[in-house]
Amino acid sequence: MNDLPIGIFDSGVGGLTVLRAIRRCLPGEHLIYLGDTARVPYGNKSPATVTRYSMEDAEFLTKKGVKMIVVACNTASALAAPELRAQFPGLLILGMIGPGSRAAAVATKNRHIGIIATAATVGSGAYESRIRETFAVAGDAAPVFVVSRACPLFVPLVEEGETESEIARMVAAKYLAGLQDEGIDTLVLGCTHYPLLKGVIAGAMGPRVTLVDSAEAAAAETEQLLAERGLLRDADSGGTEQFYVTDAAATFNRIAEAFLGRAPQHLELAAWDGRTEQA
Amino acid sequence: MNDLPIGIFDSGVGGLTVLRAIRRCLPGEHLIYLGDTARVPYGNKSPATVTRYSMEDAEFLTKKGVKMIVVACNTASALAAPELRAQFPGLLILGMIGPGSRAAAVATKNRHIGIIATAATVGSGAYESRIRETFAVAGDAAPVFVVSRACPLFVPLVEEGETESEIARMVAAKYLAGLQDEGIDTLVLGCTHYPLLKGVIAGAMGPRVTLVDSAEAAAAETEQLLAERGLLRDADSGGTEQFYVTDAAATFNRIAEAFLGRAPQHLELAAWDGRTEQA
Repeated sequence: MNDLPIGIFDSGVGGLTVLRAIRRCLPGEHLIYLGDTARVPYGNKSPATVTRYSMEDAEFLTKKGVKMIVVACNTASALAAPELRAQFPGLLILGMIGPGSRAAAVATKNRHIGIIATAATVGSGAYESRIRETFAVAGDAAPVFVVSRACPLFVPLVEEGETESEIARMVAAKYLAGLQDEGIDTLVLGCTHYPLLKGVIAGAMGPRVTLVDSAEAAAAETEQLLAERGLLRDADSGGTEQFYVTDAAATFNRIAEAFLGRAPQHLELAAWDGRTEQA
Repeated sequence: MNDLPIGIFDSGVGGLTVLRAIRRCLPGEHLIYLGDTARVPYGNKSPATVTRYSMEDAEFLTKKGVKMIVVACNTASALAAPELRAQFPGLLILGMIGPGSRAAAVATKNRHIGIIATAATVGSGAYESRIRETFAVAGDAAPVFVVSRACPLFVPLVEEGETESEIARMVAAKYLAGLQDEGIDTLVLGCTHYPLLKGVIAGAMGPRVTLVDSAEAAAAETEQLLAERGLLRDADSGGTEQFYVTDAAATFNRIAEAFLGRAPQHLELAAWDGRTEQA
């Protein structure tokens, strides 16, 4: 048993879908969330820059004393996970790519998997290589087909609350038209904003395609990892939550409810860019 | 006469519409452009953060030795111009708000002016107060009606190349529906991305509304300010251009052409976040 909090970070509000899923699995855990709203988004930035930002985010959380870090941002997971693990040896770090890939490998029947994500995540090829690795590790060498598509307008649409409108449907149709023709039976929502567009994405893909929510998969693996190590906190005692942002707390608060299903309690403006903490 | 370059900065590619307009007015000037692509966008960030970023951008340009700085970003102009002028006394600094406001005051016949801009610019109230000041300075005390509307999806639409599509038309219709009912005869495009949506904006507003492009207005005032001070460079000798970005030069290069009408020459990755230069 371990009473230390789980640290969760994202470039902004998207990771709240992960926090929400973790809270559902683990009602007893203390959770600390950091949204790097001063530099959001990460999805259109370079690997070097996303890695630098992610290091600072993780540094901020480790200084709070956490028993585990969940990288609740697919872009940061895809681009920075190896460097994070190298920088914080011994610290339990879970990204989105592994859980999403494993869930997709289990879900597919025809071995045709689609990925939708930010431009940076798609550019990294992280999902494709992790999905192949997942099959390979299971000793399954049969061919797997993976196709990826960047959907840059999905994040701003979600942040504008355009999740079920005709505009959202048209944008989804535009991005997903190509994927429908690829014969995929499984589609990974490879960005923490995308679960809020599940309705229009499902509508565009049709009933025969299973949507994999990497947030749900990551929450299940978080529980499993902590349980294996005897690090779970007693579920009866009720976990607390603390939210930090690097900028514009009021804006975060306003958008957060759509992701979290409730207003975030205990929201604070964190040290600017993680720099003051380091000074 | 003065051979030093004009420094121009923006959060990303948008300010290239300003550079393009300045180049048309002033073919002989050397131009240095900085796009802070590591922290783009500014339009959803807080005044304190936008001011800090803008200070670092201006610092970068002053170290290159410029005779003038054009703040080619409406958000930075709205939120940081007073602090920039205080920080760099004696340096000629031109933002977007003044030129856009003066052009709107001249263009309106019925004294009903609309502003479309980022959430941060609208939140600052900078255009409204500058437009009122423009009339007041001219000794014109008759009532003026100003209405503002944030259009957060316009920037991502433009960056996705969705400038003339049905999606662009629907988003424009959604944002501008309320403005049509306000009886405005003049609409300020208060973000450097918006001129690329002129077609759909004009379509939504109808032929009786004049669109004011703050980039064009700023270019005309740049020429005027330098001429008044005897700082223009000889137009016959041909000006050079140097572009810097703080991240992801390849992405910048790909999007830049739509804004600039040509590929940017001499593009370099600048010191990260302006920090290496300061160290």
